[in-house]
Amino acid sequence: MRQINVGLIGIGTVGGGVAQILKKHHDAILRHQGVDIRLITCSSLDRQQAIDLGIEDIFVDDASDVINNPEVDIIVELIGGTGVAKKFVLEALNAKKHVVTANKALMAACWDEIIGAAKENGVSIMFGTSVGGGIPIIGPLNHSLTGNEISSVLGIVNGTTNYMLTRMLEGGIDYSTALREAQQNGFAEANPSADVDGFDAAAKIAILASIAFNSVVNISQVPTEGITKITPVDMTFASEMGYKIKLLAIANRTEKGIEARVHPAMVPVTHPLASVDGVFNAIYVVGDFVGETMFYGEGAGRGAAASAIVGDIVETSKLLTDGITTFRHPVCEDNLPVIPISELSTQYYIRIPVIDQPGVFAAIADVFAKQKISIKSVVQRGGDGRTTDLVVVTHTARESSVQQAIEAVMQSECIVSEPQIIRLVK
Amino acid sequence: MRQINVGLIGIGTVGGGVAQILKKHHDAILRHQGVDIRLITCSSLDRQQAIDLGIEDIFVDDASDVINNPEVDIIVELIGGTGVAKKFVLEALNAKKHVVTANKALMAACWDEIIGAAKENGVSIMFGTSVGGGIPIIGPLNHSLTGNEISSVLGIVNGTTNYMLTRMLEGGIDYSTALREAQQNGFAEANPSADVDGFDAAAKIAILASIAFNSVVNISQVPTEGITKITPVDMTFASEMGYKIKLLAIANRTEKGIEARVHPAMVPVTHPLASVDGVFNAIYVVGDFVGETMFYGEGAGRGAAASAIVGDIVETSKLLTDGITTFRHPVCEDNLPVIPISELSTQYYIRIPVIDQPGVFAAIADVFAKQKISIKSVVQRGGDGRTTDLVVVTHTARESSVQQAIEAVMQSECIVSEPQIIRLVK
Repeated sequence: MRQINVGLIGIGTVGGGVAQILKKHHDAILRHQGVDIRLITCSSLDRQQAIDLGIEDIFVDDASDVINNPEVDIIVELIGGTGVAKKFVLEALNAKKHVVTANKALMAACWDEIIGAAKENGVSIMFGTSVGGGIPIIGPLNHSLTGNEISSVLGIVNGTTNYMLTRMLEGGIDYSTALREAQQNGFAEANPSADVDGFDAAAKIAILASIAFNSVVNISQVPTEGITKITPVDMTFASEMGYKIKLLAIANRTEKGIEARVHPAMVPVTHPLASVDGVFNAIYVVGDFVGETMFYGEGAGRGAAASAIVGDIVETSKLLTDGITTFRHPVCEDNLPVIPISELSTQYYIRIPVIDQPGVFAAIADVFAKQKISIKSVVQRGGDGRTTDLVVVTHTARESSVQQAIEAVMQSECIVSEPQIIRLVK
Repeated sequence: MRQINVGLIGIGTVGGGVAQILKKHHDAILRHQGVDIRLITCSSLDRQQAIDLGIEDIFVDDASDVINNPEVDIIVELIGGTGVAKKFVLEALNAKKHVVTANKALMAACWDEIIGAAKENGVSIMFGTSVGGGIPIIGPLNHSLTGNEISSVLGIVNGTTNYMLTRMLEGGIDYSTALREAQQNGFAEANPSADVDGFDAAAKIAILASIAFNSVVNISQVPTEGITKITPVDMTFASEMGYKIKLLAIANRTEKGIEARVHPAMVPVTHPLASVDGVFNAIYVVGDFVGETMFYGEGAGRGAAASAIVGDIVETSKLLTDGITTFRHPVCEDNLPVIPISELSTQYYIRIPVIDQPGVFAAIADVFAKQKISIKSVVQRGGDGRTTDLVVVTHTARESSVQQAIEAVMQSECIVSEPQIIRLVK
């Protein structure tokens, strides 16, 4: 049997896990999957990582030496980002190496270029780890679910923010405290922006939407809002209404095209996604024949991501071992339009901090009426006697109308601070 | 591009769905997956089914004419069972046709024979629909999760019983009422034995264990207990203890070998499986690197099962379209021993209906002490003044000791009726 040689670029947390699995499970993978996979070279900016992993003997300082090693069949890129990582991936593809990557930013921003290079060079590219960490989701979308027209993909795809929102709900703590706690527990970076501002989730939903709807969605087309403005007051209102606040990555296929966006959303407690708590991730998929399905697991962490990378290495290795020379690539050429968020229709939770005086409610109700927004419920609650929160829940309304109503509300002298808007999902 | 021709044996609920999808989504599957799939012949015992589906023109009375049609590439067997269906599947494989089947009974009872025939004839066999209906689980176990040693597979894999248990809990109704309701709603057969006695779940866990642990487990090796003895009293006790009663299909890998069994179990309400209600199914998998993952969806129903069948047809068609001539089969040759249930160690809920008189508790406690079973809690509750329920929850104990204790308890004159034993899971 032919030995399949792997070169690893990036041997930090996930790369280290890949090296570990390939060593620990080499014999089991050979016996069960019929592929003989060896890690033969690796590179990173920090030789110490290789020393710590006990693989200094195969370490090279220059990543180009991994890429251009004629013995290497599969290059695994685990640097991330669209800078040097992109350069390495393209170099590898152009050197006719098969590539496995976890690089969500790259796939979400440069899909055509990367898939194009893989096609042109007749090699395989796999990126199953780019979404959901260890959760198998790209595979099922490409394989088991191909008999469906997918109408909706909703994901809790960022473990950091899900941990923070879970702690805010359970511990009654505020955003800053939850962030500090997440950082102390190693669930959030010192600079947490990619997570808390929703960019990580935006890259992932761009990739999921591209595959689910067979039409490339770029991260630049995904309106994105993070969790930084969520308060304990919103958490309490959500609970009372029978909802949980989750940072959702949403992709829907409608008659007009594709809706893709990331924002905090109120999810009914009875929805399968509502019970996905802590650092766990889940992706909920609706297809016309399969109905509702959900894929749940650890979205991040050394083991989970490394497990998925090895899954992709094994898949590629099976093809090479079987002598296959033409490789399939996702066909995302339906060119569906991506609909601007202003055209969205959904229900809204709008919390308006106001001065607690007669006539305020009437004034605000009037603004909503003018925008033809039908109100489902209004509650006034709390405050210090001088100010209070007016919470409006709408029936289905248009995003553009709601934004105009908010602008008008902001003109009012009764407004204490900026209203909080959280969209509802069914 | 080569046209891939499909022959369908069995055009009832699921088969009808397959015919529908292949027609409705032919163009989308061609465009996105690059395979041109046509249903060219079908058979069943009832020609009227073909008339209703509008495919009478391709109907043949004799299934052998489907199998031996030289134009057919892939035979889809949707009859089920190990009788005539087995004959057809073997005939198809021996005629060098690729096979897609949803037949769990067949795979759980005749694995070696079926996989052996596929290997011998150099053709593909896929059975992704045999477990979990539309939920992709066999695929991920064979692909994305191959970097893991799987330690545990727990499944709610029977929609009928999960619907009934959900209704018993929510509606406070008893087993017979729940069964009647399930039958009225089309979720249970007139003869419900395969579902309520756990045999359907046993076949599914045999298949899951075989693939997860790379070692064939036959349905005859799966101790099986259904839900017929579960009462509203047990439901109430479970709720009070923070558990839900679910019919679980369990496969664990231990140092001694494989544990595989089906029985009602108390699942902590915080476990991901606890919130899987109604006709939904879920399979919870633990791997050494991926950690916990769960796959959730509709386990049965025309659409879900048909979706999975088409997923398998598309996969097989991709290989044929790509001109691949050697096919991979699951390698389940680790020959791990299947451990008898008497060697199981777990926690137990034991409800003992007793005469309500002094000394009863002491007598029963004595029996447990003699078997060295450590008791976690005892509650006495309810009854009519003459009789009452004594509910014992044990610490981890051996199944054989518990069975011996129960036998001894049964000798006591204080016993009103047979004790109820429900195992706990963590």
